[in-house]
Amino acid sequence: MKYISLSAMAIAMAGMSLVPAEAHAARISSPSGTVELNAEVVDSIPVYSVTYKGKPVILPSKLGLELADGPDMMDGFCQTAVETGAFDETWHPVWGENSSIRNNYSELLLKLDQPRCYRKMNIRFRVYDDGIGFRYEFPQDGVLTYFIIKDEHSQFAMAGDHTAWWIAGDYDTQEYDYTESRLSEIRAKMPEAICSNASQTLFSPTGVQTSLQMKTDDGLYINIHEAALVDYSCMHLNYDDRNMVFESWLTPDAQGNKGHLQTPCHSPWRTVMVSDDARDILASNLILNLNDPCAYDDTSWIHPVKYVGVWWEMIAGPKEWSYTNAPSVRINNLDYTTVDCHGKHSANNDNVKKYIDFAAEHGFDQVLVEGWNIGWEDWFGHSKDYVFDFTTPYPDFDIAMLNEYAQSKGVKLMMHHETSGSVRNYERHMKDAYDLMNKYGYNSVKSGYVGNMIPRGEHHYGQWLNNHYLYAVTEAAKHHIMVNAHEAVRPTGLCRTYPNLIGNESARGTEYEAFAGNKPFHTTVLPFTRLQGGPMDYTPGIFEMDMKTVNPDGNGHVNSTLARQLALYVTMYSPLQMAADVPEVYNRYLDAFQFIKDVAVDWDKSLYLEAEPGRYIVAARKAKGKDDWFIGCTANEDGHESDLKLDFLDKDRKYEATIYADADDANYLTNPQAYKISKKKVSSKSNLKLKATPGGGYAISIKPID
Amino acid sequence: MKYISLSAMAIAMAGMSLVPAEAHAARISSPSGTVELNAEVVDSIPVYSVTYKGKPVILPSKLGLELADGPDMMDGFCQTAVETGAFDETWHPVWGENSSIRNNYSELLLKLDQPRCYRKMNIRFRVYDDGIGFRYEFPQDGVLTYFIIKDEHSQFAMAGDHTAWWIAGDYDTQEYDYTESRLSEIRAKMPEAICSNASQTLFSPTGVQTSLQMKTDDGLYINIHEAALVDYSCMHLNYDDRNMVFESWLTPDAQGNKGHLQTPCHSPWRTVMVSDDARDILASNLILNLNDPCAYDDTSWIHPVKYVGVWWEMIAGPKEWSYTNAPSVRINNLDYTTVDCHGKHSANNDNVKKYIDFAAEHGFDQVLVEGWNIGWEDWFGHSKDYVFDFTTPYPDFDIAMLNEYAQSKGVKLMMHHETSGSVRNYERHMKDAYDLMNKYGYNSVKSGYVGNMIPRGEHHYGQWLNNHYLYAVTEAAKHHIMVNAHEAVRPTGLCRTYPNLIGNESARGTEYEAFAGNKPFHTTVLPFTRLQGGPMDYTPGIFEMDMKTVNPDGNGHVNSTLARQLALYVTMYSPLQMAADVPEVYNRYLDAFQFIKDVAVDWDKSLYLEAEPGRYIVAARKAKGKDDWFIGCTANEDGHESDLKLDFLDKDRKYEATIYADADDANYLTNPQAYKISKKKVSSKSNLKLKATPGGGYAISIKPID
Repeated sequence: MKYISLSAMAIAMAGMSLVPAEAHAARISSPSGTVELNAEVVDSIPVYSVTYKGKPVILPSKLGLELADGPDMMDGFCQTAVETGAFDETWHPVWGENSSIRNNYSELLLKLDQPRCYRKMNIRFRVYDDGIGFRYEFPQDGVLTYFIIKDEHSQFAMAGDHTAWWIAGDYDTQEYDYTESRLSEIRAKMPEAICSNASQTLFSPTGVQTSLQMKTDDGLYINIHEAALVDYSCMHLNYDDRNMVFESWLTPDAQGNKGHLQTPCHSPWRTVMVSDDARDILASNLILNLNDPCAYDDTSWIHPVKYVGVWWEMIAGPKEWSYTNAPSVRINNLDYTTVDCHGKHSANNDNVKKYIDFAAEHGFDQVLVEGWNIGWEDWFGHSKDYVFDFTTPYPDFDIAMLNEYAQSKGVKLMMHHETSGSVRNYERHMKDAYDLMNKYGYNSVKSGYVGNMIPRGEHHYGQWLNNHYLYAVTEAAKHHIMVNAHEAVRPTGLCRTYPNLIGNESARGTEYEAFAGNKPFHTTVLPFTRLQGGPMDYTPGIFEMDMKTVNPDGNGHVNSTLARQLALYVTMYSPLQMAADVPEVYNRYLDAFQFIKDVAVDWDKSLYLEAEPGRYIVAARKAKGKDDWFIGCTANEDGHESDLKLDFLDKDRKYEATIYADADDANYLTNPQAYKISKKKVSSKSNLKLKATPGGGYAISIKPID
Repeated sequence: MKYISLSAMAIAMAGMSLVPAEAHAARISSPSGTVELNAEVVDSIPVYSVTYKGKPVILPSKLGLELADGPDMMDGFCQTAVETGAFDETWHPVWGENSSIRNNYSELLLKLDQPRCYRKMNIRFRVYDDGIGFRYEFPQDGVLTYFIIKDEHSQFAMAGDHTAWWIAGDYDTQEYDYTESRLSEIRAKMPEAICSNASQTLFSPTGVQTSLQMKTDDGLYINIHEAALVDYSCMHLNYDDRNMVFESWLTPDAQGNKGHLQTPCHSPWRTVMVSDDARDILASNLILNLNDPCAYDDTSWIHPVKYVGVWWEMIAGPKEWSYTNAPSVRINNLDYTTVDCHGKHSANNDNVKKYIDFAAEHGFDQVLVEGWNIGWEDWFGHSKDYVFDFTTPYPDFDIAMLNEYAQSKGVKLMMHHETSGSVRNYERHMKDAYDLMNKYGYNSVKSGYVGNMIPRGEHHYGQWLNNHYLYAVTEAAKHHIMVNAHEAVRPTGLCRTYPNLIGNESARGTEYEAFAGNKPFHTTVLPFTRLQGGPMDYTPGIFEMDMKTVNPDGNGHVNSTLARQLALYVTMYSPLQMAADVPEVYNRYLDAFQFIKDVAVDWDKSLYLEAEPGRYIVAARKAKGKDDWFIGCTANEDGHESDLKLDFLDKDRKYEATIYADADDANYLTNPQAYKISKKKVSSKSNLKLKATPGGGYAISIKPID
């Protein structure tokens, strides 16, 4: 209502309005000049373009927003000022791939007036040597105080029919297998790119998710994503395949609006990473650098975590999260001590103690236990509001005894909060749930958002839920609790600001190997895409590939060799690493398991030695505060041959490398568990020739011996 | 998804399904036989009808529900059993119009099978001497576990074109003036029955709200409402004016669904009150009796409250809730100590102390202070999520000092929580807000829900919000806090179960007298309608009728004489009574003000001496634990002449009556402040002839003198 009157006023006063100033193109270069950005107002519309070493990355593309409650911010702009600057600092993350990160960019602020509406809007560009970021900024000095976004129309015009690794755009799930295709093929390949999910809302036959990895025919690697997604809805990309233009497509709320904003405010950063070397994309810190510094004064309570858990035996079957066969339960009314246990409940005292013993024996920090709390009988698919209370254990889970037992062995239990998407219920119980964790000594929680959201009509990636996910993290921080949120919005580097967000799922993880399997090239894509925004709790380490071995009714097959399962602890960076298989399986392969025990979870330095999206990735990382190095390689179904120079090792030291490689006859489908372990003396002058079989990989631990 | 398969199964197994048994009409009578109810299955549809002393009240009317996620529960029923019973008990409310209440009914349970869906549904009827209630019950012994209501189709077939006192059906506001018309005139009169509101969602040109009061041409008073609205959406009535049938119309959620249920469960009670004496409708306890007994073991902390407040000077102007002229604020970012106060902020230390002094001098329990907390600069109309924090006072409100000051004088402050409809935000801060109240000694809160709801798309009267309102009350109980919720759903007798719900607004209150004025007959209708479900915080006691006297820019006129303002403390039953005008005004009329000081707020016994909806109401109440009686009369624009027999007084005692009556020349429009006060000795044998002028009334306090 208010807007209508202001707009009417603007029309009435049109004779007094400013005449748009003549547009001036503004151009800035990245610190070393590899990336150039051009920004200007053309026909009253903001337009930008990007080049890399002179090659086009983003052709001239329009910027603007459509509002639901007032005149759009799409045109009618005049440029009132251009401000430029430069920035260079080195900062130190609480945990990460590198212990120090340089943030070095050139900046351009395009100040705009929209005279017919008496409004201002600025666009801030930051240009790095490996890409750019821009965001909309809405000052409060115009008449704009509150506004509702109908959609954001940020364009990314492509210069060619690139190859892309994409998943279908969806408001509620990211758990799709990647498709590799030309951009022009997205529409045709969309139907086969979609599988069913517990909650899914597709929006366009050419809609894809970020981070979107592409490769041009002339060898540029281009990646579009976003950074610092706070109090805004998550951006997808819709592809105009006639004009080869991607456009931002935000996630709507229950009423179909895409954002409620209050000035002064700004959008998240829209990011375009670019290089002519795929390894640079993996090594980029652009997303983290575009996030704010750490918001916490004290981070001493935040630690990387290596863990095992009562989990895979339910995922792969035949065990259950639930305790009874009741068709439905009411949290407050069912007396679980009076009903018969169906006998398949995994989170029982004996089983959890077995995991604690295993964790203690092998040096793991924590034991995740899912299914410990009442409510699992009917937790899913019913849009059930009061689905869990997050504080009441099943009768066979003695929370006090088990935490005491774990701590007596130097191990912590990891809490589990499945919300079933019922976030009002979760927020109502959150403080009590975190208090309970504090009481028993838990310091980390895996949370989950399976199924359709409550409030009904809201989507997993809308502004409402994005607000919730961050609320859960900042409230957890007050309790010194680390959060690993599954099915939450894909990360956008917020772990820099809120480092107790130690993990997310937000993609198709290892669990799908137990269901339908992931494509063999899956882990050669994820580090280019999903991992750009932050670590993934991928839960690798499955040694038993045939699900029938685990569960007679199982159908899945883990599309990976055993050696590649080890490599993932290096190639899939995360401060949170699970050894996801069950103790009985690990006990059969203790020589290979040794790598999982040895591998670090925090790093001083990370190098990407070889990389090509969808083909292979070879990463080398130096353990934090130590001179131990770990190398991992993950290959697609064609396998990969490596020729590694170990010139990153300390020139003055000698090392022994333990190589966990695919056996010569290994193959992810037919012979996945064939591996060989060898030891070799190495130095900074060594070369290593190694081979990953189809769907295979290798892992190497390198430790100084002098 | 689940439902489709079950329904398919049902079809496949149709050959095995039960054949509907022959329908048998079941009939029960109320304890004294005045009300009779007939229930049966006709053409596989449940049907009921009601008579009063042989006259038709509800003609045969269908019952059933339409589901959004499975086959409807509208037909295909067979009657499997009929169970009947009787109940008679007397219970004692924590507070109320009467200190003991008899709950005496006959019951009929109609057990139904829906063989084609393998489902069961029961309908429970309770028949009282002054009406009936029925509800749907959904056991869990069929295949029905979770279901979604598309709409409930409970019919109420009228036997004639009754006169009705109605307000427009709306999902978000009840703050309409009543219209008196024939049922056949609802459609034509609807446009003029609607005024604007901060949040309103009309749904039908013949949609009206409950409680709906009607009168038949042969002298029956019929009232339709609901009781015990818990975990369900609020019922409106849509009138089929061709067939003279009302049908239930539930409030939808953001997706258009009208209820998510889990068996075993039941609907609220649908109630039909009936009598040939209008006074019986006012005296009925049917709604309370259909609610569950008190849910709290300890109710010692719940007390009726008489209060004054920093309120009318903002409602009538020219004072403000806000502290500055900032166009918008962010709760966490604005430093209020650095901005200039606009000087119109009422909730300042000096002003609040003035009210505390006044309350202490005149024996009031509490002082409400609105606008004490930060956020009022942009609290309304912006769909602002983080609008208040409920814990941070404005810099000129010293919460510790003021509470200490008040308590030193035997007075408590009353907390105010305006949510602006942002209920996620309220729930996030609720515990801290209640903790703050406990810390400073508040024991009651006036909450508010002005404007459109957040979660956006939800409505004030939907299942989501109904769940919230009750959550706010039960969480408050944990803190021994009493709740008076404004703009919440209309009450349905839940104050019996949760007696810390000491008040609601849920109708057009006195505040509208400062805006546009209420119709002069307003308070002769509310006790028949809005008050059926529970007490209203009507905030009477305005002595200055011309808003221009209060605020030079004011337009309102209080459509009542001063004497009638006194009467409202008796006719509008509530355990929470405000003297709403400002101390300066009361100080000019201290003789009349004496009645407000004297009148009780809790009662042993209530009698309705004279009543006719839309015309007049005369109530007499005996103060709890005392032999003091208070009488009030409110008249419409025609005035009213009373001839009261005081035979309810103790036959063995003598009394003095103080009569606060309209002066002979008083008139609500032209001479509202003309009153006369007289004293008179009375006994149980006395008759009092009294006159209320147009828009007037009278108030009497009767105290024993022996």
